[in-house]
Amino acid sequence: MRVELVNTGTELLLGNTLNTHLPFVARALFPLGLRIARQVTVPDGTAIREALSEALDRSDIILVTGGLGPTTDDVTRDWVAELLGLPLVRDEAVARAIEERFSRRGLSVPDRAWRQAEVPAGARPIENPNGTAPGLGVATRWTGGDRPGPRHLFLLPGPPRELRPMMADQVVPALAALCPCGTSAPMRVWIIAGSGESVVEERVGADLVAIEGLELGYCARPGEVEIRGIGPAKRLDEADRIIAEKLGSQLVSRTGESLDRVVSGLLRARGETLSVAESCTGGAICSSLTDLAGASDLFVEGFITYSNRAKEARLGVPAELLRQRGAVSDEVARAMAEGALETAGTDWALAVTGIAGPGGGTGEKPVGTVFIGLAGKRCRTVTERHRFFGERETFKRLTGQAALDLLRRNF
Amino acid sequence: MRVELVNTGTELLLGNTLNTHLPFVARALFPLGLRIARQVTVPDGTAIREALSEALDRSDIILVTGGLGPTTDDVTRDWVAELLGLPLVRDEAVARAIEERFSRRGLSVPDRAWRQAEVPAGARPIENPNGTAPGLGVATRWTGGDRPGPRHLFLLPGPPRELRPMMADQVVPALAALCPCGTSAPMRVWIIAGSGESVVEERVGADLVAIEGLELGYCARPGEVEIRGIGPAKRLDEADRIIAEKLGSQLVSRTGESLDRVVSGLLRARGETLSVAESCTGGAICSSLTDLAGASDLFVEGFITYSNRAKEARLGVPAELLRQRGAVSDEVARAMAEGALETAGTDWALAVTGIAGPGGGTGEKPVGTVFIGLAGKRCRTVTERHRFFGERETFKRLTGQAALDLLRRNF
Repeated sequence: MRVELVNTGTELLLGNTLNTHLPFVARALFPLGLRIARQVTVPDGTAIREALSEALDRSDIILVTGGLGPTTDDVTRDWVAELLGLPLVRDEAVARAIEERFSRRGLSVPDRAWRQAEVPAGARPIENPNGTAPGLGVATRWTGGDRPGPRHLFLLPGPPRELRPMMADQVVPALAALCPCGTSAPMRVWIIAGSGESVVEERVGADLVAIEGLELGYCARPGEVEIRGIGPAKRLDEADRIIAEKLGSQLVSRTGESLDRVVSGLLRARGETLSVAESCTGGAICSSLTDLAGASDLFVEGFITYSNRAKEARLGVPAELLRQRGAVSDEVARAMAEGALETAGTDWALAVTGIAGPGGGTGEKPVGTVFIGLAGKRCRTVTERHRFFGERETFKRLTGQAALDLLRRNF
Repeated sequence: MRVELVNTGTELLLGNTLNTHLPFVARALFPLGLRIARQVTVPDGTAIREALSEALDRSDIILVTGGLGPTTDDVTRDWVAELLGLPLVRDEAVARAIEERFSRRGLSVPDRAWRQAEVPAGARPIENPNGTAPGLGVATRWTGGDRPGPRHLFLLPGPPRELRPMMADQVVPALAALCPCGTSAPMRVWIIAGSGESVVEERVGADLVAIEGLELGYCARPGEVEIRGIGPAKRLDEADRIIAEKLGSQLVSRTGESLDRVVSGLLRARGETLSVAESCTGGAICSSLTDLAGASDLFVEGFITYSNRAKEARLGVPAELLRQRGAVSDEVARAMAEGALETAGTDWALAVTGIAGPGGGTGEKPVGTVFIGLAGKRCRTVTERHRFFGERETFKRLTGQAALDLLRRNF
């Protein structure tokens, strides 16, 4: 079964919005043994028809996102109906659900919201508990292209908080019923910290390529390299031995688990707690740790001490030290970590201080310089100096990754 | 000139990575009068050849990202060479740049890095100051498809911190030279807070549609609706009058400027400062404010008081109040905001406390309940109660938006 994803929306092609549907849908399909063979983004308008028609020529399952809402640029329903030669008819159950949704919030139904109750004849509405526009499932027989045959279309709403539960709770089960015997070859994802892509492949690449029947992929992200293997379990075990041997403590996880999850897991396993003192990262480390459910067991407190005054008052960093060494220094990172440990009373404390840029660099400490400190109840404080390249957000991300990795390696 | 963007990379289709290239490239092209007519994602392998060949049939300018690196799955160069019938030749200038890059870091060149110096004959290497793989520009004449003629390919590296400066500094000027007379009709983007898409279009939609020659689009995101208009300046002014009149204080910006930028701009204009006390958002508000360069002028300090103990110790929230009212309460939000204002000595302080879920909800205060407090030196403290639906990250985002909007409306 070949799967294609068509994302509609002029905003995606004007650069106003990130396409978060692709990764979400891809991850939802993988356990069913389905991979997206191609993804296409088209603007609202006739391009939708063109992309749909090509997808119908090529693929068995076509997932379409967006353009089901109430506004005038929401035209996906209309094009699907035209392309498949189906009239649009009002679905009374959908109309009632729309009415209930508005009345629950004490609102009357705006005229244009009724558009969302119009469905191509024969399409199966898919309930949307998080919005007014239902999804639609359409099973049809396609006679165009080189591969005529049955086709399954799923039209899904554009807003992620509507699409995600609908995909997980309703579309995935429907797809599982369509391809009951599909299970993917196992995939394993190794996350490596502390080296770039070239260096990682130089160390393990030749040995991994030599494993027969293993599909390999590499992906570099700020602060980590992902190695992806798809193949029989035995081959994956071979790969695992090579990666563990050659990359040692740089191996963060064998499950694709991100560094923040790995660090959270380590803390949870020992029932230990963490506090974080952030200057240049401005809360990004705390925020990534608290994206995980149950963070309150591990993460006690964060000190976003952007100003020198806050570093002194909250973390007890001596004013003298700040003056002599500068806020961005090894000694201040150490003092911040130790101050956070003591003030918050946690088992561990991380601290970062650096120059995110674009301004503030000097010859001795250029933009991108950062000092990281780790203090622990039962160990000596350690610090590291790094220099990261990239824009402000990349810098924050690289610094956060390096800080969490310092804790991981010293845990 | 029709533009197509081809993103290569199995990791994109397995859901391991977000495609951030599309918005970046789209925004870079718009001022040149160029829009992306179609974006396609394909896995590494022969699908790249297929997508490239279709793009060459259809479009004048084809931008390709990814697959230029040193690893075995980096095959874009090879497919382009084959498709255009060009041999791969070693470019000595590129080879020297690769050598210099590694030696600057005290490393010798890994064997596979040399692959990156192989370019299709006649292609123009595009310097990559942030990585070893150069970009490539290829001008060719395409004889396939219904529209034979000149084509311009640009092959760009996959890592965003390599692609972005290359796009901005080298590809955009090259494209500007190709289409010297292209300038887009002006675009204006209005950001609206506090209502959903249906309600926003119900209030302004009919009046906006009545403006002749105005291309309209809507996009809903957590906490905001974006209205996008493209057309002559006079028509945009008409639209602006309607939006300002009908949506009043819900209009956050007329420039697409996000809420965090708008709030930062307000503070900067008056030279005032802000501190933030976060519980359920765990640093997300601080982090979004410090993504902006120059944040240190406005943003003094953040208190990520996840535990009750931290709320007491850092913000002076009375233990009695926490016990009586609970950490998630109007009174505690108020006390947190006032505590942050006093402790940090800022002009303004925002505080949020809520239940991000999935656990922790009660009948009276279900998951998604949040209280927001705003304290200011010269005004009475205000609080708001909200209930947000969605997963943990959506909840954090909605809460952060509501907090910043509370400050904006009370500034």
